[in-house]
Amino acid sequence: WLVVNDRLQTANDERLMSIPIAILGASGYTGAETIRLLLGHPQVRIAALTADAQAGKPMLELYPHLAFADLPELVRIEAVDFSAVDAVFCCLPHGTTQQVIAGLPSHLKIIDLSADFRLADVQSYAQWYDHAHQAPQLQREAVYGLTEQARREIKEARLVANPGCYPTSVLLPLMPLLASGLILKEGIIIDAKSGTTGAGRSARQTMIFSEISGGLSAYGVGHHRHTPEIEQGLSRAAGEAVSVSFTPHLVPMSRGILSTMYVTLAPGADALAARECLQDIYRHEPFVRVMPQGVAPSTHEVRGTNECRIGIFADRVPGRAILVSVIDNLVKGAAGQAVQNFNVMMGFPEPLGLTATALFP
Amino acid sequence: WLVVNDRLQTANDERLMSIPIAILGASGYTGAETIRLLLGHPQVRIAALTADAQAGKPMLELYPHLAFADLPELVRIEAVDFSAVDAVFCCLPHGTTQQVIAGLPSHLKIIDLSADFRLADVQSYAQWYDHAHQAPQLQREAVYGLTEQARREIKEARLVANPGCYPTSVLLPLMPLLASGLILKEGIIIDAKSGTTGAGRSARQTMIFSEISGGLSAYGVGHHRHTPEIEQGLSRAAGEAVSVSFTPHLVPMSRGILSTMYVTLAPGADALAARECLQDIYRHEPFVRVMPQGVAPSTHEVRGTNECRIGIFADRVPGRAILVSVIDNLVKGAAGQAVQNFNVMMGFPEPLGLTATALFP
Amino acid sequence: WLVVNDRLQTANDERLMSIPIAILGASGYTGAETIRLLLGHPQVRIAALTADAQAGKPMLELYPHLAFADLPELVRIEAVDFSAVDAVFCCLPHGTTQQVIAGLPSHLKIIDLSADFRLADVQSYAQWYDHAHQAPQLQREAVYGLTEQARREIKEARLVANPGCYPTSVLLPLMPLLASGLILKEGIIIDAKSGTTGAGRSARQTMIFSEISGGLSAYGVGHHRHTPEIEQGLSRAAGEAVSVSFTPHLVPMSRGILSTMYVTLAPGADALAARECLQDIYRHEPFVRVMPQGVAPSTHEVRGTNECRIGIFADRVPGRAILVSVIDNLVKGAAGQAVQNFNVMMGFPEPLGLTATALFP
Amino acid sequence: WLVVNDRLQTANDERLMSIPIAILGASGYTGAETIRLLLGHPQVRIAALTADAQAGKPMLELYPHLAFADLPELVRIEAVDFSAVDAVFCCLPHGTTQQVIAGLPSHLKIIDLSADFRLADVQSYAQWYDHAHQAPQLQREAVYGLTEQARREIKEARLVANPGCYPTSVLLPLMPLLASGLILKEGIIIDAKSGTTGAGRSARQTMIFSEISGGLSAYGVGHHRHTPEIEQGLSRAAGEAVSVSFTPHLVPMSRGILSTMYVTLAPGADALAARECLQDIYRHEPFVRVMPQGVAPSTHEVRGTNECRIGIFADRVPGRAILVSVIDNLVKGAAGQAVQNFNVMMGFPEPLGLTATALFP
Repeated sequence: WLVVNDRLQTANDERLMSIPIAILGASGYTGAETIRLLLGHPQVRIAALTADAQAGKPMLELYPHLAFADLPELVRIEAVDFSAVDAVFCCLPHGTTQQVIAGLPSHLKIIDLSADFRLADVQSYAQWYDHAHQAPQLQREAVYGLTEQARREIKEARLVANPGCYPTSVLLPLMPLLASGLILKEGIIIDAKSGTTGAGRSARQTMIFSEISGGLSAYGVGHHRHTPEIEQGLSRAAGEAVSVSFTPHLVPMSRGILSTMYVTLAPGADALAARECLQDIYRHEPFVRVMPQGVAPSTHEVRGTNECRIGIFADRVPGRAILVSVIDNLVKGAAGQAVQNFNVMMGFPEPLGLTATALFP
Repeated sequence: WLVVNDRLQTANDERLMSIPIAILGASGYTGAETIRLLLGHPQVRIAALTADAQAGKPMLELYPHLAFADLPELVRIEAVDFSAVDAVFCCLPHGTTQQVIAGLPSHLKIIDLSADFRLADVQSYAQWYDHAHQAPQLQREAVYGLTEQARREIKEARLVANPGCYPTSVLLPLMPLLASGLILKEGIIIDAKSGTTGAGRSARQTMIFSEISGGLSAYGVGHHRHTPEIEQGLSRAAGEAVSVSFTPHLVPMSRGILSTMYVTLAPGADALAARECLQDIYRHEPFVRVMPQGVAPSTHEVRGTNECRIGIFADRVPGRAILVSVIDNLVKGAAGQAVQNFNVMMGFPEPLGLTATALFP
Repeated sequence: WLVVNDRLQTANDERLMSIPIAILGASGYTGAETIRLLLGHPQVRIAALTADAQAGKPMLELYPHLAFADLPELVRIEAVDFSAVDAVFCCLPHGTTQQVIAGLPSHLKIIDLSADFRLADVQSYAQWYDHAHQAPQLQREAVYGLTEQARREIKEARLVANPGCYPTSVLLPLMPLLASGLILKEGIIIDAKSGTTGAGRSARQTMIFSEISGGLSAYGVGHHRHTPEIEQGLSRAAGEAVSVSFTPHLVPMSRGILSTMYVTLAPGADALAARECLQDIYRHEPFVRVMPQGVAPSTHEVRGTNECRIGIFADRVPGRAILVSVIDNLVKGAAGQAVQNFNVMMGFPEPLGLTATALFP
Repeated sequence: WLVVNDRLQTANDERLMSIPIAILGASGYTGAETIRLLLGHPQVRIAALTADAQAGKPMLELYPHLAFADLPELVRIEAVDFSAVDAVFCCLPHGTTQQVIAGLPSHLKIIDLSADFRLADVQSYAQWYDHAHQAPQLQREAVYGLTEQARREIKEARLVANPGCYPTSVLLPLMPLLASGLILKEGIIIDAKSGTTGAGRSARQTMIFSEISGGLSAYGVGHHRHTPEIEQGLSRAAGEAVSVSFTPHLVPMSRGILSTMYVTLAPGADALAARECLQDIYRHEPFVRVMPQGVAPSTHEVRGTNECRIGIFADRVPGRAILVSVIDNLVKGAAGQAVQNFNVMMGFPEPLGLTATALFP
């Protein structure tokens, strides 16, 4: 079996020739998930990890599951030698991100996982985030990175705004249906349910186990910040302004988003046509699965993977259809799609580093 | 403190004079929950418990938490002396229930927690439950027991069909709004989420902990059996046929239902008017709470109680509103409303035995 | 049913004659649990609730499940008129408690749920809590309130130190066995597992749902602060100093403690004798249950109740036995035992307000 | 980036030259986990999957998360062409396994994940499993596959008995300590806690989510079937018969085992020496980690990985030490160790296919 050992050796050598990247904001969940995925990526070398408040702390204290991996120390952003890095995954909080990115050297490819560059309209940003955008010129350059919808632009982009978790779960099923005219742009209702990692890792009384376990609640009813991002994507697909009802819920589970979407079919269209449309569009996609008729996907099926699974149902009410989509909010909803976009930007095969099977149960 | 001891003694004496009842089907979750509530009811004496397959088994094996309570043995229905019983809580599976109840002596007050007598239209029953109704004449006599809507009829009834859990969570908020004309009967969308006890206690692979924990799924999309019950109630309120989109979801928690309802406001109406309507209707109700503006209820708040809490929100989309209701599916959604109905039938104050505070956390 | 209405009226009248109490530190879980239990206590009137940082906040914000109960406003301790209060439940953090209690008027009966007065030896307190005890004279007066072991002293006490949750789960099974000489004082090993409410309600990153859910860990191995309290109780029972191995674990559930205890039987003793000993001692206790042979109790069985259940097993290794005990850490492990002690101090029947059946599932 | 595409192509080619294997009993959790791991193994091709009762069913029905993977159909064992297979992972229930394996062609390498060949003493097997062993001659040939302890024998073996989950978590920390004489063989106490997947996937009332969630219980106290397997390993290490106290508990989580072990140090030994012993032994092991002083591992850290992590603590009681070990019961406790053993048997590097980072949170 020398062949294998050789191949491992070769892999090792290639690794030395692989892309050096930095992860900014490695102490949050999206940062840690990016680390997890890139540790399994054969063409990436993690060259720098930053974490402001946690700089200098041992990984054992921050993330014990990463403690024995071959990783650089956590440093402050100022300590990173960006000349030795080709690409950056930016996992910083919104608001501070735009300033940090504005200060990065121009040779870097940047995948930004924050909300800062997702809204093309900086007025809309200002309205939903309560402060003026600090880097509007950079915003114009940014490409919205829903990979399946914008592959070509992402390939050429220097700065990719990685989509939000809720929007990803909604745009993948609905954009093709709007673009094809199979559903109406009026009366779209999105009832979304998320696990707790979507709320991040910061210490908050409302997020402790005793408060979450065994119960369910809606939040941000009628005014969640992912709404304009959803409407931006749907409007692009429809070719005109789309408004949606969007209600997120917090479910006692760590990972996963399930979005249930209630739509009105265009005259003459039916659920079958909608299924066929999505099947056609996504037939060759490695990460989008249209479920067979009558089958609703569960978040269990995509835990730890970059997949989005979509079920489509005729509603009892004539002329209406119901769609159910699931993703892992930390993977296709964050770090996984970021790696997918990185692969596109670098010319790698899209699934590189993203082929692991779901962890079930 | 002799006064207190006296009072306890008195309570004890009264208990001997209290209503002897039987619980049929005590081995399921609704049966056990009925036992739990009635053990705390000052005017009830549990005289008989039945459980077909489990008859003769010690309670320690069936429900250890009830093992040390003062309870009669589990027997088969045939072994019950109904002449020594005044009222019956029937917690049997649907289908068999109608025949059992048809065979009960006529002096009994009956609260049926199954689905068998909920649908006034036996054709509809036959269509949704795949067999002809076996006791249509009894169906005509049965009163649909949504207490807040049918108190007067329940007081006179011999047989009360206790509402389903999903319908209870939907009808309490929506019936008054339809009856008052504040919302339209078209385009009502109900996205409901339930804990696992709604699926009962029988052994099923899909319900084991490893399959449920950490994930979320939709089920019965477009064809759940609670749909006709919901539409029956809404149609009564609206005065004409109402069709709804209804999608239930299974949440990794034991108890609780949260229903998110998307409605279209009538011309001229707004969310404020809807709130005021519900506040007026439910002002003096002991078990229905309309939340203040901007506040969404959580299932945590009603765990173990007979409460229904309702939040009302203006949607971003003009002319639309969103309602969020929560109940404990085993209490207001089953055994609690059954006890409430029993209290009405017996002329007791409605909250008797139902005043415990929610168990949180 | 006028009788019933009369009785309810009478209950109401009596309530006006009932004991006015204050709860200091009502914003934590033990405070909220004390409120929950006392709302169901027929001889108590909650006259004052304090919460330092949260004073003035509406209950809806703090504890929505208590929002519609008839409760006084949350005020700062300084605002309480203690002359209008007969008894105080003190749910403050350890350290500050001793000073607060030292400043309370002497007519008050005090049940302290903190750790401040549990250790009779103030040197031991200083060693385990890293600061000198601020009220050593008060410590001398305090009675350790493990109700089943100290009923007589509690009845006469002005200040009762309510036991910790872990110690309660350990002392109830082991004290009688040590006192009777059936087990040796050497080599006692206690492996304890707790739900998350034992860690309180404060915002900590390590306690958020995403960190706790789906996993298990040991903590404080070899140096948990409940160790000296356990050893104090066991030493009293044994009549000489006892040292134990004690390891607590954090389980992904909200409520409940399960302690597994490994003991060496005295020469000539066996597990059967140990069971009989406990059965004899606890035969007439309302809140301690010795399980039948071969049956291990689960925390499910005691959720929301003041019960302690104990299973006893012969070990495979000759001469050894294994005990398993369960309690609800917030009830028998905190607020429930506090109410039980209050009942003893006031001369009420011990189970008053504590008779609710476990909430299962 | 042709290099990369080339490499992927090469990987693909190699895959065609890779080892064809069969998984018998693919419908249980250990079967599905073996599939998950082998789908990521670069030198394996899954050639056959069997599942008796489920044969012919689409994977979408059985395991939706595997539905879109490139997998053969589920067939009955009789339908497998074993001449086209080089190795077999046997995930069948104990009892039936021994007969199935006895009937397999002799060219096959077999890793058996059941309990059937773990106990070298067939009398002991008969005693604990209530029936005579059906293949005692095969038992003599079988190698007990705790990889770190038996690598050399495993390399030469045709039939490897893959260790049980509890024994793996206990033997890795304790065998070296016994072998080195640092701890005594008397008085070893093992308090183990497992997630629910250890109980398998069959439908049982006691395992449904509503029964498990929110609570904790001990089971099989004093007579769990993993006891003789633990004692067999410890006795081999000690060179004389060892008896242990072993109590398993069922924790409301899907994956993970945490074992807390209480041991007596040999005269002159201390916890530091024990740590150094384990560090020496496991220094170059890819899957065993000795935690730094004062740090206890959590099951979170090993979820989805083949790691065992071990913490060592001096007990307060002089002369005693406490060890805490964690594994993922489905990986190092079952399918992962099976793949590790397969790698050893085939001469592959041990970590091949087992390098994924833990899925946290």
